[in-house]
Amino acid sequence: MTLETVSTNRSHNGTQGVYNHASSATGTAMTFSVFVPDHEPGEQLPVLWYLSGLTCTHANVTEKGEYRAACAQHGIVFVAPDTSPRGEDVPDVEAYDFAKGAGFYVDATEQPWAEHYRMRSYIEQELPQVVAANFPVDMARQGITGHSMGGHGALTVGLRNPARFRSVSAFSPIVSPMNCPWGEKALGGYLGPDRAAWRAYDACALIADGARLPGLLVDQGSADNFLAEQLKTHLLEEACKAAGIPATIRMQEGYDHSYYFISSFMADHVAWHAERLKP
Amino acid sequence: MTLETVSTNRSHNGTQGVYNHASSATGTAMTFSVFVPDHEPGEQLPVLWYLSGLTCTHANVTEKGEYRAACAQHGIVFVAPDTSPRGEDVPDVEAYDFAKGAGFYVDATEQPWAEHYRMRSYIEQELPQVVAANFPVDMARQGITGHSMGGHGALTVGLRNPARFRSVSAFSPIVSPMNCPWGEKALGGYLGPDRAAWRAYDACALIADGARLPGLLVDQGSADNFLAEQLKTHLLEEACKAAGIPATIRMQEGYDHSYYFISSFMADHVAWHAERLKP
Repeated sequence: MTLETVSTNRSHNGTQGVYNHASSATGTAMTFSVFVPDHEPGEQLPVLWYLSGLTCTHANVTEKGEYRAACAQHGIVFVAPDTSPRGEDVPDVEAYDFAKGAGFYVDATEQPWAEHYRMRSYIEQELPQVVAANFPVDMARQGITGHSMGGHGALTVGLRNPARFRSVSAFSPIVSPMNCPWGEKALGGYLGPDRAAWRAYDACALIADGARLPGLLVDQGSADNFLAEQLKTHLLEEACKAAGIPATIRMQEGYDHSYYFISSFMADHVAWHAERLKP
Repeated sequence: MTLETVSTNRSHNGTQGVYNHASSATGTAMTFSVFVPDHEPGEQLPVLWYLSGLTCTHANVTEKGEYRAACAQHGIVFVAPDTSPRGEDVPDVEAYDFAKGAGFYVDATEQPWAEHYRMRSYIEQELPQVVAANFPVDMARQGITGHSMGGHGALTVGLRNPARFRSVSAFSPIVSPMNCPWGEKALGGYLGPDRAAWRAYDACALIADGARLPGLLVDQGSADNFLAEQLKTHLLEEACKAAGIPATIRMQEGYDHSYYFISSFMADHVAWHAERLKP
């Protein structure tokens, strides 16, 4: 697990790094970013994972997410992975919502995707080991969040791994890919037509099937163009209510789907996770 | 002075807009961004100008500058112009440090630059009128800041217009273009060989020639690759000391020339201006 340092920049009383490694999960090189606030020698900090949305790499949130001030204030390490395998050997299609930039945090079973599109294993198994081995993190204190497709990722990874995450939140998540065009295309493409196999990748289905969270914070913009057709926040509200999950789901008036929205509420989310990630 | 709205996004309890207009100063279309925090009907807010550095447009600081939270907190309008005229009719060269993206905030007198490269007139005369006519601003309360070439712009525009600006600050400014390769290339190219004409565009020369500021805040990264050859912060320290200008010039340990640096101290600068822009 050799880590190549792509860049480091001092920022907000900490170090913003970008790193590259050979992933055994995806069979490709993978790039991710990590922000580490200044800390005492030997200190281990809690870690907040951020999963990005369609078309993004680690760079979008790293440049536009405005998380560093809050992470430095609360002493939280922030990790931003890529959204899919990359490289010339990786199969792709001409679409913004499938294949490269659109891994949907699944382990694909269909061809030609199954070899490289293994973002579930990458996020759940491999990258945590890489982060634990190379950064001053306390892996007993992890939170996860994400945006849109990455909000779906945060919810489903969090629901499937309740022992790993103390806190789960999301920005404008795809709450039920089984019930929207983006999700049907992605899950059908990566997993094939058997919808029973899709349920492990659908937050509302996971909750219906018994998965639970101790709490949940979601922010959603009311002016988000994708709200009605793709995101369907109300399905998550209903699922949490039926399951007794104490969820704070906020409709933010006038905000859209962009990083102008995400950055506006990032400090809130970091503080919310920080409260739950105390020693 | 018809203004075309390119985009607006709700962000940090305000509106981040991007606008386009036909500039008479440059004879081209010009794009700039404005953030307006929520405010009472009829209220007029102070305005902070931000001049960008080499290669930038309005977009760099708008996406990466992390100014909106602080501007919303303090009730300040933030205006980010472009760094040069643009368009196919505008002469250009193959260089990152001259012509497009590198207007240096001068009114060029040399050919073929003199027709369009009139960023001094644009920033000092035209754009303030456009902003005053279209946004809820109190033009009696203006501050100016900027980065690198834009730090040079903020210092020189501020020094030449003491009645207009109550507050001037800069991030890693080119403090004396007459004494560095970037500046010699730009001023020589735009203004010709007579160095006497350059003095109006050199902060240290303006101070030596009698221009004054009521105060000054400068942040400079100690790990900035351009510090020794291009920026030469010590020349500004010496000029302010000799002139009795009360300047706070901070060397920030380990920070470089990037937006990772700028964004780290942006909230400090906004607060510093806000203190001086109170009614």
